[in-house]
Amino acid sequence: MFYHVKELQFNARVSKPDPVFARLLLEQFGGSNGELKAAMQYFTQAFTCKQPYPDKYDLLMDIATEEFSHLEIVGATIQMLLGGINGELKDAAEESEIMQLLDGKAAKESFMHQAMFNPQFAVLSGGGPTLTDSNGTPWTAAYVTANGDLTVDLRSNIASESRAKIVYEYLIKFTEDPYVKETLRFLMTREVAHYQQFEAALSTIQPNFPPGILQSDPRHSNTYYNMSNGAEVRGPWNSGESSQLGETWQYIADPIQYVRETSGLQGLKPTGTDRTEKTVEKMNKALSEERSEEVTSALPKGENQWSTYSK
Amino acid sequence: MFYHVKELQFNARVSKPDPVFARLLLEQFGGSNGELKAAMQYFTQAFTCKQPYPDKYDLLMDIATEEFSHLEIVGATIQMLLGGINGELKDAAEESEIMQLLDGKAAKESFMHQAMFNPQFAVLSGGGPTLTDSNGTPWTAAYVTANGDLTVDLRSNIASESRAKIVYEYLIKFTEDPYVKETLRFLMTREVAHYQQFEAALSTIQPNFPPGILQSDPRHSNTYYNMSNGAEVRGPWNSGESSQLGETWQYIADPIQYVRETSGLQGLKPTGTDRTEKTVEKMNKALSEERSEEVTSALPKGENQWSTYSK
Amino acid sequence: MFYHVKELQFNARVSKPDPVFARLLLEQFGGSNGELKAAMQYFTQAFTCKQPYPDKYDLLMDIATEEFSHLEIVGATIQMLLGGINGELKDAAEESEIMQLLDGKAAKESFMHQAMFNPQFAVLSGGGPTLTDSNGTPWTAAYVTANGDLTVDLRSNIASESRAKIVYEYLIKFTEDPYVKETLRFLMTREVAHYQQFEAALSTIQPNFPPGILQSDPRHSNTYYNMSNGAEVRGPWNSGESSQLGETWQYIADPIQYVRETSGLQGLKPTGTDRTEKTVEKMNKALSEERSEEVTSALPKGENQWSTYSK
Amino acid sequence: MFYHVKELQFNARVSKPDPVFARLLLEQFGGSNGELKAAMQYFTQAFTCKQPYPDKYDLLMDIATEEFSHLEIVGATIQMLLGGINGELKDAAEESEIMQLLDGKAAKESFMHQAMFNPQFAVLSGGGPTLTDSNGTPWTAAYVTANGDLTVDLRSNIASESRAKIVYEYLIKFTEDPYVKETLRFLMTREVAHYQQFEAALSTIQPNFPPGILQSDPRHSNTYYNMSNGAEVRGPWNSGESSQLGETWQYIADPIQYVRETSGLQGLKPTGTDRTEKTVEKMNKALSEERSEEVTSALPKGENQWSTYSK
Amino acid sequence: MFYHVKELQFNARVSKPDPVFARLLLEQFGGSNGELKAAMQYFTQAFTCKQPYPDKYDLLMDIATEEFSHLEIVGATIQMLLGGINGELKDAAEESEIMQLLDGKAAKESFMHQAMFNPQFAVLSGGGPTLTDSNGTPWTAAYVTANGDLTVDLRSNIASESRAKIVYEYLIKFTEDPYVKETLRFLMTREVAHYQQFEAALSTIQPNFPPGILQSDPRHSNTYYNMSNGAEVRGPWNSGESSQLGETWQYIADPIQYVRETSGLQGLKPTGTDRTEKTVEKMNKALSEERSEEVTSALPKGENQWSTYSK
Amino acid sequence: MFYHVKELQFNARVSKPDPVFARLLLEQFGGSNGELKAAMQYFTQAFTCKQPYPDKYDLLMDIATEEFSHLEIVGATIQMLLGGINGELKDAAEESEIMQLLDGKAAKESFMHQAMFNPQFAVLSGGGPTLTDSNGTPWTAAYVTANGDLTVDLRSNIASESRAKIVYEYLIKFTEDPYVKETLRFLMTREVAHYQQFEAALSTIQPNFPPGILQSDPRHSNTYYNMSNGAEVRGPWNSGESSQLGETWQYIADPIQYVRETSGLQGLKPTGTDRTEKTVEKMNKALSEERSEEVTSALPKGENQWSTYSK
Repeated sequence: MFYHVKELQFNARVSKPDPVFARLLLEQFGGSNGELKAAMQYFTQAFTCKQPYPDKYDLLMDIATEEFSHLEIVGATIQMLLGGINGELKDAAEESEIMQLLDGKAAKESFMHQAMFNPQFAVLSGGGPTLTDSNGTPWTAAYVTANGDLTVDLRSNIASESRAKIVYEYLIKFTEDPYVKETLRFLMTREVAHYQQFEAALSTIQPNFPPGILQSDPRHSNTYYNMSNGAEVRGPWNSGESSQLGETWQYIADPIQYVRETSGLQGLKPTGTDRTEKTVEKMNKALSEERSEEVTSALPKGENQWSTYSK
Repeated sequence: MFYHVKELQFNARVSKPDPVFARLLLEQFGGSNGELKAAMQYFTQAFTCKQPYPDKYDLLMDIATEEFSHLEIVGATIQMLLGGINGELKDAAEESEIMQLLDGKAAKESFMHQAMFNPQFAVLSGGGPTLTDSNGTPWTAAYVTANGDLTVDLRSNIASESRAKIVYEYLIKFTEDPYVKETLRFLMTREVAHYQQFEAALSTIQPNFPPGILQSDPRHSNTYYNMSNGAEVRGPWNSGESSQLGETWQYIADPIQYVRETSGLQGLKPTGTDRTEKTVEKMNKALSEERSEEVTSALPKGENQWSTYSK
Repeated sequence: MFYHVKELQFNARVSKPDPVFARLLLEQFGGSNGELKAAMQYFTQAFTCKQPYPDKYDLLMDIATEEFSHLEIVGATIQMLLGGINGELKDAAEESEIMQLLDGKAAKESFMHQAMFNPQFAVLSGGGPTLTDSNGTPWTAAYVTANGDLTVDLRSNIASESRAKIVYEYLIKFTEDPYVKETLRFLMTREVAHYQQFEAALSTIQPNFPPGILQSDPRHSNTYYNMSNGAEVRGPWNSGESSQLGETWQYIADPIQYVRETSGLQGLKPTGTDRTEKTVEKMNKALSEERSEEVTSALPKGENQWSTYSK
Repeated sequence: MFYHVKELQFNARVSKPDPVFARLLLEQFGGSNGELKAAMQYFTQAFTCKQPYPDKYDLLMDIATEEFSHLEIVGATIQMLLGGINGELKDAAEESEIMQLLDGKAAKESFMHQAMFNPQFAVLSGGGPTLTDSNGTPWTAAYVTANGDLTVDLRSNIASESRAKIVYEYLIKFTEDPYVKETLRFLMTREVAHYQQFEAALSTIQPNFPPGILQSDPRHSNTYYNMSNGAEVRGPWNSGESSQLGETWQYIADPIQYVRETSGLQGLKPTGTDRTEKTVEKMNKALSEERSEEVTSALPKGENQWSTYSK
Repeated sequence: MFYHVKELQFNARVSKPDPVFARLLLEQFGGSNGELKAAMQYFTQAFTCKQPYPDKYDLLMDIATEEFSHLEIVGATIQMLLGGINGELKDAAEESEIMQLLDGKAAKESFMHQAMFNPQFAVLSGGGPTLTDSNGTPWTAAYVTANGDLTVDLRSNIASESRAKIVYEYLIKFTEDPYVKETLRFLMTREVAHYQQFEAALSTIQPNFPPGILQSDPRHSNTYYNMSNGAEVRGPWNSGESSQLGETWQYIADPIQYVRETSGLQGLKPTGTDRTEKTVEKMNKALSEERSEEVTSALPKGENQWSTYSK
Repeated sequence: MFYHVKELQFNARVSKPDPVFARLLLEQFGGSNGELKAAMQYFTQAFTCKQPYPDKYDLLMDIATEEFSHLEIVGATIQMLLGGINGELKDAAEESEIMQLLDGKAAKESFMHQAMFNPQFAVLSGGGPTLTDSNGTPWTAAYVTANGDLTVDLRSNIASESRAKIVYEYLIKFTEDPYVKETLRFLMTREVAHYQQFEAALSTIQPNFPPGILQSDPRHSNTYYNMSNGAEVRGPWNSGESSQLGETWQYIADPIQYVRETSGLQGLKPTGTDRTEKTVEKMNKALSEERSEEVTSALPKGENQWSTYSK
């Protein structure tokens, strides 16, 4: 069950209305890397995670709840930045200064004259936040990923926090309001904190590479295809050892020729790796057994109840 | 700020897994009239409403929070109905009975054989809920309406609750699980309760018809255009008095002829109504003044702070 | 069958081109509460409604047809407001004054210099309306609701008309063109008229509360959960009698404690209401029988024909 | 203005309910190549077309109106194919045979047991059509193209009619109901008729190749890039003369080498064509003048009125 | 397999940054008629086409690959037009001139002051292209059509090339940069070249009208419904002979009356055509046999392999 | 420039048609974590990355090109799995065994009888792949993230590869075809290889934590809010040292009380960390200077050219 506390988690304030920055800030309200995306992602992931990882379930729900609280902060800030628009619209019988948006007269006196004003603040939302990004695209669950495997989901979350962080970093450059800057900096910092929390959670699941259960095929796991004609560019991603498996990168300098010669990569043998088909199979079986056992043993047989109420 | 309580608001249980019903139930998780839509709609509306209606703000946030809690109930139920899928998928090295989904062998023994199984439960979400409707369409904020005028928003909410109610009613017919039925009935009933709460809130704003500020034009407010060729059908919607304004319906039996004769409805005089251009204008001005004053006086000048912390 | 009349229902005119207002007006052409949404909603609802409510089918089709006619008025107005853009674009070999849009030179002389110009008018639609909202989001059927129960659908329509009304009210503030104002006022007024028509239709179906067939559970129908920590706010939505069922609101001041004490709302008895499980069941059966009989008896057995042609 | 006639344009009938085919048929109701797409495309195109092509405006509105009439036929057929579902759902208090959908009991007796049943017919639309394609994706205006140039729009329409035709052809294979087959064949035939009508309209605009105004650059208009490594495949699209301009195709057998040798296609001269930069420029100017003049002279100065009412 | 060449197909350059034009150009990067749409459309169509038309498969893949190469040119041009934004954003600790976007100070000195700047360049993409159209709507596969019949798909492609051409034509009017103009002209010209290539390919499939296999019904193939009340407008699309079948157009002047008299077009006989039900059936059978034979004989039985590697 | 090689990178084969698995496999063709998403993500990111990281630009383009090659493998496999559908549809005049899809007769003999068949294979795509996920939702660029900062983008890619890997792992469980299994295993393995390549690239950029430039605020960077009422759950994510900054986690056991006492987190001092406002500011400035210098010095002044052709 959720519960609402009337105070915001952070004391969000604005110095004065600024509808243009309100538009930019929509990116974190209804945008692809915004607070709603984060909240819904962790919330949705939590369901499969509850068994067999009740501690991670708790982590996901805690952060999801904090992200909802941040969504509220962002919405409140947008509302304050939109200041008097709602009031002007209520003055429906008068041709008020809102008209200056269109004819440019006395534009300097009106906070709505600016170039990048979002028309939907004026004629759709009545001067409140819209559940869209800064270009008016409605929020979609296509932003949310939840794949039922915590070694995958936590990596998705680390990346999501990284993106949310950079968007706050960009936003900070576009306001001079010290109160708004302070709020944005708080929100940006929390993304960095969550990043480390997800990373710590991932480290408690071992092994966690590759994500999921099945090991990679040793015949294809350490090849690099030089798919771009021109000068060869080398780096630790295609020479030396691979970062996780410690296999030696095999550089395929001319993929067209290589693919033809091997009839489409048929009949290869593992090279530059100690792993074999056998060791892989063994690992696959062992991990399959372990992980499926974890889930199955945690699940009640037949009748099921979510909360720990006495039946 | 939001807060999470580990127990569900309602003690949701299932008798046994049922992935087909889990698919149907997605309609209330990530569907157009589901719990997320309701929660996000009231939450978004609340921002413009806080000034000048702090009591309605409270109502909107209370119900939004309850809807989030219902979203959690629905997600937990879907997860329980999907039972062992996550565990079977973790058994990645084995060709388990999950294969029966495809070849139909021993289909009766497997709960996954059914016709309407959602493929994304198997290959995308890993046996957890997806933020989509029952056909896999991702949730979109296009479902949410928030228009910055409470006489409009509350009507939107009354309609939203009506739709959520009927979807639960339909769903109840498709499960025989007494636990699930009980949960659905609770959720359905809450929609009816919310319906009445929104209606009560609307009645405290007077006048509230027409929604918004501007009165309708008395020359066009009580005409009915018989746009369908064939037998005339009459009812209280085109004969007698109109439900709210008490004007007499004017029935335009032949709109093509009427529009041509009036050169596109030019030069009309109000008929069947006591309202005139003058009374309308007066009403528009009075209500504009009153409502914009309410907002403006409630808003702080310049610097603004959302919560009631001491500055 | 539909038929087109060359004249518009209302004699739409513009005083001069105004591409910025054309952009705002897109909200009513391809926007979430615009004329296409209204037309498609009533049109789609009409199919299930035809049996057993042929009179309401007629009403829905009449208003749907009028909304299509309004869509045409809105499109025509946008086209007139976009005035010469199509002609300028056809002058493809010349660097005409259209360039002023970009470099700002002589911006005052060009009607296209304004801040909020929609780029797709210039480079996609060739100076005509686009089937999008004012921010360029394509119209989607996600806006349309049709749920196969008239007590629900009519409420959806009352809300839809309310939203369309307020959007016209907002739009009126953003143009000074008296012709455009006149057209908008006509269109706004028609939404108010339709509102009352749908309300009148709803009143002819009795009982119509709650929407649909199933009655609410008397154990959960009159409780109010105070989900927000802080000062208690009371109003007719959580004290006194409920608006439709006349039950006494039960105020749950501390939902966390209440839910825990009741093990998730188990074992409750109806309070503050005369309705019982028995009266509810009786009502459910009676209404089920009546309403399903209405549909079934209206439907032909086996072979079916839509129109009343002789077979 | 639109007008509705109570009879369908074609006497649509069904022999018996068939909810699976109803699902397939959604493709032509709310699908990407369906009747709504066609209707909205021609309707939207008509606005820019009215000046300077009032005769083509008429053609577009005539066919748009016919497509709306076909949308009605498709919707009515879906409704009839869904037969008794709405009635069964109204019988909300009973566990009726609708349950057989889930448990497979007596599936042969129920028309709803079939594999491909659309769940939203059951729990969202109440047994009526949904404005989606056969997989439940909501209709979107992204399907509609209108580009403000009739030589482009008519080609879009020829292609749209082709796609609509093939979808009807495919659908015909999936029903054995002679009534439904008859209706589908009528609808399919009309697409072929519209195809020829659009083609005839295009032929009256001369020149109409290339679409739009600007001529192609003679240095790049007749080259064919063999972008696929392997055996060269030749045909009239890369050898001999080009179909419209009568230029000789220049086959670039090795694009990588060619692009490098020409520093990215710099410094080329026209080959295999009589057109030169000069003739192109002349043509561009002449056509620009002619076409922009057509639009400009057709548009009223300043004040504008859409219909031919006396002002 | 695809392969990347480090050089662009065309030597794309810009004279100086121009973020406003960068926004317009998005229309061809992630817009409805842009290069990605073209590339994905031909690529997707190619799969069904490979059998029985390996030569057309080759054509589709060649042009798809060229369109990907054009997508790269468009993206590179946008990146160059966005010039220093990425660098300014990296200077995260400074309140740089990027602020002028908001307060208008010294706007003339900053290239980011312009009205139509895309906010997502600033706060989402970090100064790079976004996979959206010029209004920020994300690219969707709803733009792509592939219908498994080459006589349909090639017509779709001719229309797509026409739309892409006109959008480039419009874009050319909005830049004065000679380098950008040169690139746009190259890209526009290639659309015209592809148009002719698709047309040539279509001409090699005979018969290709109507698209697909089934012939139109001679009772409905040459009628024109005058669906618009008012003056009759006649042209080669409703008088004389039809363009492809050479049938005489039958003009239905009053469709309402006609439909009623014929009880919804029942009992008609073919008029103005030599085709009969018999000739149609014969043609249907012959073409069905031929075309299905072509596909079936080209397909391997049972086991299948895509490339021509030795098994 | 891109180039196409006629052979697939991997010799994809199928043992026999299997349209149901073809539907599941759509998840990797047009689904949210599929090959198109991967290809478009790396391709889009590459543009901002070219300056100042030409080596990572190369890496991104190499992998993007390989992902396009994988998209081709997936499409080819789907096409082979759909086997004879295209041929059956071409046999348009016959009521072939395709009908068994609907009536279930002889279902065992037909490969199209299965429950989860995708209707659009039959009536839209003509038996070819559709650019959708397994539920028919069209691919959308909302899946793609590109944020103009390589420390963010590479993390997004590591997560994307993780999700693509798990979807292949799930898919492998749903086919018994050894050829298809072999192809899926190759594709799955390549995701693991790419994962390590992106990780290696990230490690060459130092410092890379937090992603972007700005350091986190030391007052908020190491707090954990226990947002869930109930038993406290502790782990390395809220006790001990944080994973990247080595700060000591501060556990806020009762966030409601804490937020109130601090008036919304005002007046805090950094605790459990050595970082101060000053060290943060210094770091921000130094990194801002370094990173913006890298970009700016790499960018040409004024005129710009993408490829290294001689000007």
